[in-house]
Amino acid sequence: MAKVQLVEVGARDGLQNEKVPVSTEAKLAFINRMIDAGIRRLEATSFVNPKLVPQMADAADVMAGVPRDRGVSYIGLVLNKKGFDRAVEAGVDEVGCVVVASDTFGQKNQGQTVEDSIRVWHELSRAAKERGVKASLTISAAFGCPFEGEVPLSRVRDIVEACMKSPGVDLAVADTIGVGVPSQVTEMLRTIKPLAGDVPLRVHFHNTRNTGIANVAASVAEGVTYIDASVGGIGGCPFAPRATGNVASEDVLYMLSRMGIDLGIDLDKLIDAANWIETQLGKTVPGMVSKAGGFPSSAQAACAA
Amino acid sequence: MAKVQLVEVGARDGLQNEKVPVSTEAKLAFINRMIDAGIRRLEATSFVNPKLVPQMADAADVMAGVPRDRGVSYIGLVLNKKGFDRAVEAGVDEVGCVVVASDTFGQKNQGQTVEDSIRVWHELSRAAKERGVKASLTISAAFGCPFEGEVPLSRVRDIVEACMKSPGVDLAVADTIGVGVPSQVTEMLRTIKPLAGDVPLRVHFHNTRNTGIANVAASVAEGVTYIDASVGGIGGCPFAPRATGNVASEDVLYMLSRMGIDLGIDLDKLIDAANWIETQLGKTVPGMVSKAGGFPSSAQAACAA
Repeated sequence: MAKVQLVEVGARDGLQNEKVPVSTEAKLAFINRMIDAGIRRLEATSFVNPKLVPQMADAADVMAGVPRDRGVSYIGLVLNKKGFDRAVEAGVDEVGCVVVASDTFGQKNQGQTVEDSIRVWHELSRAAKERGVKASLTISAAFGCPFEGEVPLSRVRDIVEACMKSPGVDLAVADTIGVGVPSQVTEMLRTIKPLAGDVPLRVHFHNTRNTGIANVAASVAEGVTYIDASVGGIGGCPFAPRATGNVASEDVLYMLSRMGIDLGIDLDKLIDAANWIETQLGKTVPGMVSKAGGFPSSAQAACAA
Repeated sequence: MAKVQLVEVGARDGLQNEKVPVSTEAKLAFINRMIDAGIRRLEATSFVNPKLVPQMADAADVMAGVPRDRGVSYIGLVLNKKGFDRAVEAGVDEVGCVVVASDTFGQKNQGQTVEDSIRVWHELSRAAKERGVKASLTISAAFGCPFEGEVPLSRVRDIVEACMKSPGVDLAVADTIGVGVPSQVTEMLRTIKPLAGDVPLRVHFHNTRNTGIANVAASVAEGVTYIDASVGGIGGCPFAPRATGNVASEDVLYMLSRMGIDLGIDLDKLIDAANWIETQLGKTVPGMVSKAGGFPSSAQAACAA
């Protein structure tokens, strides 16, 4: 299997919906813990409307505080040119752009139809080249829409085809609401890979229905290069309060390590980071390896069969 | 893919370590809910030492109360001839037998070395033929031992080879402590399948490190016939209190249904059963589909990427 790299999204996707305010200092401490564990590409924040997402209002402050001497590529999520300008100004290494796979979802989430978001991608991709920053692309709600239900694979294929006229540094399909299953992952990746050409593939899974880790396994089998994950599996959706967030970085790391795939990340340090953010948030995180420990844990014992 | 069937183990593996006492009436109500959802093979209880596992002391009462007119095959777990006799007396359709893959685990869990447990299997398998009940076999701790760590695949292969001299109605490998990963599942199933011959394969996964559902997906890809799972994902180990239990039946059902595999089970009714047992136990169950709902859930919504 090819080299796989974790893209840590806990500081953005993980924290963007948290009701408990997380200070800029705490975010920076969290990011430093990720880096200490070995993370080298991470989504630090998002440059979206602070009135709509107050949790990310300190985006520029976060970027001003991240360490610059540790070989880390920092991603800032942007949804339009205004956010792009703020992100570049704040010194991100990459702008993380989002094209939606459903009109209803897109309009509710970012005020854009599918077509709008494709147009914005081309605009931001061009602007990124001009400003000398990298642009990565995520197709959101690719595995299903909370409002429209099924998202036809043919639509995802068409979107990818349209977007690849301005190739970014990678191309991701995102299961934003955690409905995807492994067979769907396999089929989608096989469909888009020929269209992506040399652009490496990334996947973004939420573990809302417990399929996220299985989807990661299916993705790795298809040779994806990057896997989005969040320390502790934090994240989630304000409209589905009992649903959990991204696949947990330490859970992905545990599985892939045991499968013989080296991510260059220290599991114990990642577990420490998960336990730390759990304390900060004041609630149990959904990730499981931080609770159960690695292999073999002497804390485990004697249960019949 | 071949026909797959769920084997519901919530009433045994799910409840055997619960501190909150669950009455016989509640167990029977739980079992009836499983059956109403479409479950047709289920582990109802275990006939083990009631001093060591008081939660299963009412095994005969449970068997006396289960409905007999709904085409359900009831399994009673047994670890020795004494338990076997009690189980047959109580009217089980199948005795679920356990051979251990680790001496240390076996001695602590059931007072048997690997060799002891293989000998007991041959004895119970013969006795089952004489008494006209089915005998199923589970190799426990096959993916790792809480005490010894790695369990070599060659040892599992040797155990299977020895056990297949008395073939049962199925053959399962169990990840008793939830350490297994998909590549290990694939390799193990490919190794034991030729030895099992016509005996259908079953898998038993715990989701302790979030790999259980991925392991189910890997197993289905290898053509296993039976998947153990518990409503709500209940179960767990008294020595690892934060670790969770079996893969949740409704989570397995969600994934396999979305992969086009029909288990003949009603997801909504299974979710109802998970919510019901959650109330009975007075704590959140680990399963996730009971919280998030099926596809597409209108409760889901608008989270960026």
